Amino acid sequence: MTTVITCVQLAPVVGDLEGNVSRATDAIAAAVRAGADVVVLPELATSGYVFESVEEVRALAITPDHPAFGSWARAAGGAVVVAGFAEAGPGGALLNSAVVLDASGVLALYRKAHLWDRESLFFTAGDAAPPVVETPHGRIAVMVCYDLEFPEWVRTAALAGADLLAVPTNWPLWPRPDGERPGEVLNAMTAARLNRLAVACADRSGVERGQGWTRGTAIVDADGWVVAETGADGGTASASLDLAASRDKALTERADVIADRRPELYGAVAAGPPPRRTP
Amino acid sequence: MTTVITCVQLAPVVGDLEGNVSRATDAIAAAVRAGADVVVLPELATSGYVFESVEEVRALAITPDHPAFGSWARAAGGAVVVAGFAEAGPGGALLNSAVVLDASGVLALYRKAHLWDRESLFFTAGDAAPPVVETPHGRIAVMVCYDLEFPEWVRTAALAGADLLAVPTNWPLWPRPDGERPGEVLNAMTAARLNRLAVACADRSGVERGQGWTRGTAIVDADGWVVAETGADGGTASASLDLAASRDKALTERADVIADRRPELYGAVAAGPPPRRTP
Repeated sequence: MTTVITCVQLAPVVGDLEGNVSRATDAIAAAVRAGADVVVLPELATSGYVFESVEEVRALAITPDHPAFGSWARAAGGAVVVAGFAEAGPGGALLNSAVVLDASGVLALYRKAHLWDRESLFFTAGDAAPPVVETPHGRIAVMVCYDLEFPEWVRTAALAGADLLAVPTNWPLWPRPDGERPGEVLNAMTAARLNRLAVACADRSGVERGQGWTRGTAIVDADGWVVAETGADGGTASASLDLAASRDKALTERADVIADRRPELYGAVAAGPPPRRTP
Repeated sequence: MTTVITCVQLAPVVGDLEGNVSRATDAIAAAVRAGADVVVLPELATSGYVFESVEEVRALAITPDHPAFGSWARAAGGAVVVAGFAEAGPGGALLNSAVVLDASGVLALYRKAHLWDRESLFFTAGDAAPPVVETPHGRIAVMVCYDLEFPEWVRTAALAGADLLAVPTNWPLWPRPDGERPGEVLNAMTAARLNRLAVACADRSGVERGQGWTRGTAIVDADGWVVAETGADGGTASASLDLAASRDKALTERADVIADRRPELYGAVAAGPPPRRTP
C-alpha cells in the first residue's frame, strides 16, 4: 500500500474566509494533480489564527455543511483531504476543528482537545478521541497542533489502529539553538518512532498580526525519520510511504512498541475528573 | 538551585563484577572531584549486558546490601549517584535494577519495568513506578533505558514531581540517516520538552560479544535541548543546570505542559489487565 502524502504549507489570511477557502481549494487540486493520495492543510486554514475577539471568530466560523467543504470535495479527486477550520458548533460553541473528507464529502470531524495559550479565550475544547478513518489510502487519524504535544493523545490514535496521523498545525515561532530542528518536529519524529506510526504535519507560513510561524511542515515515516519537509517560504512537502509499515509494531523479534507497554501501571496518567460534556 | 550533573559513559565488561565495580567507583570519585552533584552511570554497570544464560546473570547478580554500593557511597562525597546493576531480588528473581545512593547509602531502588528484547529471557520486569528521591540537589527520578521509550512512564515521573530524570542506559547501536541524532536522544529531548523535566542519560561504550552501542550519553535541559554529550569513545558529559526550571511547567502565560493535559480523556492508554505481582 503505497500512499503519496502531500502537506501544503499555506499562509491563511485572518478574516478572509472566501479567499482562504479558494486558495485551499486550488492547493488541494494542485496536490491531487501532482499525484497526492492524502493532502494535509494547516490548522484553521479557513479563518487564520491570530484573532482579536470572539466576535471575529464567530463571523468566520462555519459548519461542516458549509459550501467550502463541497469545493474541497470536488477538488479531492481520489484523494483524502485533512484540513483545519474554525467551526460553528452545537449550542453556539466555537471549536478549533479539522475535517477528513474525500470526493463523497466529509468523512470525519475532529475538535482540538488541547487548546494552546490564547485559544481558550475563543474556543471550546473538544472531548472526543482522534478519529481513525478507514480509507483506500490507509487508516488516517487526525489531531490538531498542540494535541500532538500530549503523548497520551498520540498513543490513543495509535492504539485505535492509525496508519497515518495527519496533523494540521499553526506552530508559532519559538526560539531554538542554531542547527537544531524545531522542537515540534523533534516531537513529531519521536511520536512516530515510539508508536511506529507515520506522521504528517502541515504547518503554515506568512506573518499574521506580527506573529511568525515555525514553517516546520514535515512528513515522518514509521521509523521516526523526516522523509519530506517544506522550505521556510511555503510550498509543499510530499512523500510516498508504504503505510503497511505502521501496522508492524515490532522493533526486533522480541520487542514491540505497543505490546511492551505496561498499561496496568499507567493509572497515574489517566487519573482526573470525570469527562467534560461535549459542547 | 544549580546542580552539576555528570554522566559517565563506561564500558562494563561482561562477567567482571569486581572490575566493573572498581572502575565505577573510580569514575564516581573522579566525577565528584571534578565538581559533580549528581553522577549517572550506565545500565547494568556492574555486570555487563550481553548475557548467554540465566546462570551467567545469576552469578553476577547482587543485592542492594552488596559491598559494591558501600564503595560507591564512600566515593560519592556530597553527590548523589544513580547507576544500573543486575539485582538478585526476592524469591530468586533477577532484575535489571538501578540504585540511587549517596554517602549515607542506598536511598532508593528501581526495577526496570519495560524489558528490551532478550532481557525477558533473563530478567523479571519490575512493577513499581519510578521513584522520585528528594535530595539536596533536587528531586531525582530514575528509570532504565527502554523505559524511557514509553512516554506514559516519563509522565508518571513528571507527575510525581521529578526535577531530573536520571536514565542509566545500554543503547544497542541502531541504524539512522546521516546527520541525524540517535532516535534515543531525540526521544530524551522530547521527553524533556513535553514534561519540562531535565533528563540525563548515561549510555555505555565498548563492544561486548559483538554488540556495539549508540554511545549517545546526553544531558538535556527542561526546554528539551542537549546541553552536554560525550564523544563516541566514552568519557563524561557534564552540565550545570538550574533544576528549578523543571518546577515551572508553563510555556506561556496560558499554556502549561502539565495543566493542559486532559487526563479524563486518556483512559485508553491505561486500560489493561490488573497489576502483576512484584517478584
